[in-house]
Amino acid sequence: MKIVAGGVTHPEGFQAIGDHIGIKRKRKDLALLYSEISATVATVLTTNVIKAAPILWNQKVVEVNKSIKAIVINSGIANACTGDTGMKNAELMVKKTASCLGVEEKEVLVASTGIIGKQLPIEIISNGIEKIKPMLSNSVDAAHKAAEAIMTTDTFVKEIAVEVEIGGKTVKIGGMAKGSGMIHPNMATMLAFITTDLNISERLLEKALKESVEDSYNMISVDGDTSTNDMVAVLANGAVGNVQICEENKEYERFKEVFHYVNTYLAKQIVKDGEGATKILEVQVKGTATKEDAKKLAKSIIRSNLVKTALFGEDANWGRFIAALGYAGVDFDPAKISMGISSSVGTVLLMEKGNPIEFDEDRAKQILEEKELVITIHLEEGDQEATAWGCDLSYEYVRINGEYRT
Amino acid sequence: MKIVAGGVTHPEGFQAIGDHIGIKRKRKDLALLYSEISATVATVLTTNVIKAAPILWNQKVVEVNKSIKAIVINSGIANACTGDTGMKNAELMVKKTASCLGVEEKEVLVASTGIIGKQLPIEIISNGIEKIKPMLSNSVDAAHKAAEAIMTTDTFVKEIAVEVEIGGKTVKIGGMAKGSGMIHPNMATMLAFITTDLNISERLLEKALKESVEDSYNMISVDGDTSTNDMVAVLANGAVGNVQICEENKEYERFKEVFHYVNTYLAKQIVKDGEGATKILEVQVKGTATKEDAKKLAKSIIRSNLVKTALFGEDANWGRFIAALGYAGVDFDPAKISMGISSSVGTVLLMEKGNPIEFDEDRAKQILEEKELVITIHLEEGDQEATAWGCDLSYEYVRINGEYRT
Repeated sequence: MKIVAGGVTHPEGFQAIGDHIGIKRKRKDLALLYSEISATVATVLTTNVIKAAPILWNQKVVEVNKSIKAIVINSGIANACTGDTGMKNAELMVKKTASCLGVEEKEVLVASTGIIGKQLPIEIISNGIEKIKPMLSNSVDAAHKAAEAIMTTDTFVKEIAVEVEIGGKTVKIGGMAKGSGMIHPNMATMLAFITTDLNISERLLEKALKESVEDSYNMISVDGDTSTNDMVAVLANGAVGNVQICEENKEYERFKEVFHYVNTYLAKQIVKDGEGATKILEVQVKGTATKEDAKKLAKSIIRSNLVKTALFGEDANWGRFIAALGYAGVDFDPAKISMGISSSVGTVLLMEKGNPIEFDEDRAKQILEEKELVITIHLEEGDQEATAWGCDLSYEYVRINGEYRT
Repeated sequence: MKIVAGGVTHPEGFQAIGDHIGIKRKRKDLALLYSEISATVATVLTTNVIKAAPILWNQKVVEVNKSIKAIVINSGIANACTGDTGMKNAELMVKKTASCLGVEEKEVLVASTGIIGKQLPIEIISNGIEKIKPMLSNSVDAAHKAAEAIMTTDTFVKEIAVEVEIGGKTVKIGGMAKGSGMIHPNMATMLAFITTDLNISERLLEKALKESVEDSYNMISVDGDTSTNDMVAVLANGAVGNVQICEENKEYERFKEVFHYVNTYLAKQIVKDGEGATKILEVQVKGTATKEDAKKLAKSIIRSNLVKTALFGEDANWGRFIAALGYAGVDFDPAKISMGISSSVGTVLLMEKGNPIEFDEDRAKQILEEKELVITIHLEEGDQEATAWGCDLSYEYVRINGEYRT
């Protein structure tokens, strides 16, 4: 696998663009992603009972149609809790995009991110789609602009492009994502879009996505709040010309592996750019009876406000890690826990087989001063494991989210 | 029911005391609660898999013995994750208390709150018990001192005393609790001790406690972290001389009602004194299919960091309330939600049957400037309801919990 410069336009046959059209005050707010030939699509949409209009629209589309050509995305307004008008506006975005691109409506997906409960300025968006359509391009720059246009208070662009040999062909995968934060803070919607020129069956693309999401996007937490607009979509247009992957063979496994790398990369970028984050935390839980147990334990730690504030304070306050393990809803023997924390400058062992280890506080402080921390937990209940990623909880988080919307 | 001045010593036959003995630097750190005659006990102990030594001790005791005479409580060190030495120290605290009071070991419970993973200074505590025992008293002042001695970074004492006519007798109930925060911040252990001179059977005391806890202490959240040391205990010594309550009659119902008032009062006091809290939030969820649903929905809102920071920022950012409802794990029809927020100065309707209501932002701001806020949510799924209490998330919370332990 080779990581290269670029984003969603890196795979053959994909174009993109992003620009400022006037939903937000200054920053880019509308993006288009376009596949010149029909692409097989798989999506994972929010599990929130309250689903934004674009989510409901996409749900309907992908139920009957797994072959699409475009995605239109706006930032600034989430089009959630917007009733019938909201549904109509999502449809209008799709219709306008379809007519501008000369594709069918059922070949277009739509995504929105931003404030809940506000209606989209549909005239502005409609004109915007018309305006940016001619700028679609397969350049690195165009992909970058699209990745910029889906941002809210993200502080950096999240994109990646990779190449991998599969069945004698150089398959390309590109991806972009947005994370947490808004100029008018409201909630951290997560959006991720992945493109590839691989030819793969609907069923396997879906399978690869579902499995990868479980261990990537679903293992991150910025604030524990699940958005009404979360969406991950992967488009595979087959432009590389390989024989379609229809069974779980070596080629499928290779794709899945690299695809998962891309998803994990984007997921970690989202956490790194979490609202107010000064540190990124990786929690590895090993030796559990089931994988589900390992996930629950790891997520319990990254979600704990007490853990997050301790890390912000650079305090090896492991009692909080232990407590978060204890209330995760998993049964285990406390006498078998071993635990350590590490960063690029070293490791400190905090607990061994249930016993606290006396450690050098200065050394611990040194380790915790780094930006990327890893907590490793070993139980002795089995051979399963999981990793979760989170960030600290800072004054800045409170400021960003406590500021009045206007 | 009459609320009177006082605390745990208000009921007949109860004595208490609290003092500084040297676990903490300056503040009171050891408390004794003593019933002159054997009291029926019921307890609810932490559900955290990692249980502190005193919790494990109490579990063992109350399994075989429901009749106790004393509780010894220290603050400053939690005696959690302290291995065999910790268990031994919990036992030594009990033994010393028993010998000083001339009661049996199995008549003594023990509680600790403070830093995890540190051993108790058992000599200091042993001498401390000896020192404070002669100061035991049934005065209002002694109860107050005990309530002070169980505090960590609590900023005010939490106690209550009430009187109620039951079966022709004036029954008294007293209570004290501690909440969230430590000088060496570690975690928010919740302790609550309730006394009464009512004569009631073990079974019914336990039933009343279990049911009351579900709707009081278990419906509050400061930071979503469940402590390793949480403990609620009620002692009923029968000193008032009523015929023992052995069935769920009118007298039982009356006691339960007032007892629940006491628990709810103490629970709300804990939230009010939540670490860094500037506001207290009550969430009422009505019209759900089951009570469990109402609880899940209410708790999801009070636990959301995005809701908590919005309240700190005095922002009627209802999209966050909606999102927290949506990911609570309860199925409901979004088109039927009505929602409002109110305080002592008025009410603003935010949503009616799924539709956002245009509201006056200035009016909303006025309401949100108050210290006590109530969010009311109506679904139309049934006739069940629940109430939860929480607090906002402030810079001060981050400061308290981010500061280095030393």
